[in-house]
Amino acid sequence: MRTFDSGKSTFAEVGPIQVARWEQQYQFGTTLPFGAMWYTVPPGASSVRDCHPEPELSIVVAGTGFVEVASGITEVGVGSAFLLDSEEAHIVHNRTEDGSLTIFSAYWMPLDDAAAPAGQAPVGEPADV
Amino acid sequence: MRTFDSGKSTFAEVGPIQVARWEQQYQFGTTLPFGAMWYTVPPGASSVRDCHPEPELSIVVAGTGFVEVASGITEVGVGSAFLLDSEEAHIVHNRTEDGSLTIFSAYWMPLDDAAAPAGQAPVGEPADV
Repeated sequence: MRTFDSGKSTFAEVGPIQVARWEQQYQFGTTLPFGAMWYTVPPGASSVRDCHPEPELSIVVAGTGFVEVASGITEVGVGSAFLLDSEEAHIVHNRTEDGSLTIFSAYWMPLDDAAAPAGQAPVGEPADV
Repeated sequence: MRTFDSGKSTFAEVGPIQVARWEQQYQFGTTLPFGAMWYTVPPGASSVRDCHPEPELSIVVAGTGFVEVASGITEVGVGSAFLLDSEEAHIVHNRTEDGSLTIFSAYWMPLDDAAAPAGQAPVGEPADV
């Protein structure tokens, strides 16, 4: 068993949020069929609008997320999850003023596009749309 | 975007724990390259010892886990993760007396064994060792 401590992980500033990409600090070889990261949105802040080919499954591990996509904004509480489609533009808001929002995300290239590399990092690039 | 509310999910009793397997209540087609579930260990309880071919990545989303494998017991706090190897026997303990332990897990067949079905449920079967 290996453990991964979010509190001891190395977070990098990506615009207004902090991102800890697993592939930058852990070695997995071919063990994981997805890339993974934690990211933290400070109180009152929002992520940069992002859009990427990888579907992304996110679990809120602290705080409450407000996830904005084209159809609107959805509240996602701690322990719950949201699945973004491939190329679905999204912004994650932390609407509280007194606590961070922390999310664990897994992402992968669509299974019908196996020729593309998996585990590339989808967060932090300004959307190209 | 789809959301998955842990509080509205259907949990089944599996020995002393409650398990909500995603594939039993959501339709994903080939979107996810892994199976997924939440499980909750009541205060003072432990999961049944389990062992399965799927590697399993778990994120603690509420409470504190004490994860027992052959090498010992490791504390895993909320937001942190643990990765169990294929065929690594494990028991998850909730040592608190006043709060549930809730874990999100993803599991998949090893990538070098693609002929085996993915997304089978690894939790709740007594270990066969």
